[in-house]
Amino acid sequence: MDREPRTKKGQATRRKLLDAAAVEFGTRGYAEASVSGIAIRAGVALGSFYTYFEGKEPLFRALVDDMSHQVRHHIHDRLSGVTDRLEAERLGIQAYIEFVRQRPEIYRIVEESQFVAEDAYRRHYDAFAQAYTHGLAHARADGRISEGSDEVRAWALIGMSVFLGLRYGLWQPEASAEEVARAAGDLVARGLSPR
Amino acid sequence: MDREPRTKKGQATRRKLLDAAAVEFGTRGYAEASVSGIAIRAGVALGSFYTYFEGKEPLFRALVDDMSHQVRHHIHDRLSGVTDRLEAERLGIQAYIEFVRQRPEIYRIVEESQFVAEDAYRRHYDAFAQAYTHGLAHARADGRISEGSDEVRAWALIGMSVFLGLRYGLWQPEASAEEVARAAGDLVARGLSPR
Repeated sequence: MDREPRTKKGQATRRKLLDAAAVEFGTRGYAEASVSGIAIRAGVALGSFYTYFEGKEPLFRALVDDMSHQVRHHIHDRLSGVTDRLEAERLGIQAYIEFVRQRPEIYRIVEESQFVAEDAYRRHYDAFAQAYTHGLAHARADGRISEGSDEVRAWALIGMSVFLGLRYGLWQPEASAEEVARAAGDLVARGLSPR
Repeated sequence: MDREPRTKKGQATRRKLLDAAAVEFGTRGYAEASVSGIAIRAGVALGSFYTYFEGKEPLFRALVDDMSHQVRHHIHDRLSGVTDRLEAERLGIQAYIEFVRQRPEIYRIVEESQFVAEDAYRRHYDAFAQAYTHGLAHARADGRISEGSDEVRAWALIGMSVFLGLRYGLWQPEASAEEVARAAGDLVARGLSPR
């Protein structure tokens, strides 16, 4: 159980613990990370830790959910006001690559969750895919994109972003996110067919 | 060091060890898997094991390289004789989903390798991306596909397949691989633009 605090102070402490957990799990990995290490990083007493999380695994699950929320929120923010769906695809890829550069630990944490807390791993991608599928269905119904399977397209496009984030966000952070997103956005908009 | 055997019998034993390792690492994960468990599964004496691999980690690295080779070989086989590049994209996605259903352990093994043997993980995707980039460059030079960044497209298309394999190969193996590949192939060929 993840005890959501009611007071502002409690919420701030929970935030501190999640941020510390992102650093600890992101750099040391699940097996090496420790609750006491996270409490020290956060500047929170160990006794107090347990009023927020029941232990390492529940904290890790909460962290995956939190990062999942943060990345979707970040992209959503960057796309606010964009009505052209194809433009939104391009900007979404760019926003994702930029997020990865700010929070590179997202890869290690999300990828490791499939071994440690598979439910959280699935929840992350399912939430992403549901929102994406919904957005594509809307755009398709309005004739802003072509006909096709919303769900298959959603998973395909998520995979695209995850791998571009890995390649150009994590492994080659000096690459221009804008250029990568332009090339990928063109693929998403017009495909490989000769023009 | 991975000692490649010279005799037929030696090669057959090495093959048995790699197949047993795929089952052991794929079902138990790296931490829980043991050299003795793998030797028993393969029906190979433990003393003999060490004439093939120096230990658990070198064996795991060899296994990732082996699975990487197998999946590329499988797709390459399925595409032999296909000259239409867009048709090859569709068939490649289908072949990948089908491979995942035959060898679902590929996900656990490749994904876990990023924590255990990151060099093998990168080698797997780099090899894939290099071959893909090369193929796209050829098709582009011949005018069989449109102009665009071969490398960005290669990583985008690999991510697409990996996620479709996860969603429809691993999580929903009863879905029609052909239909998924048709929907995704259409996206790759023509994009989302209204027609």
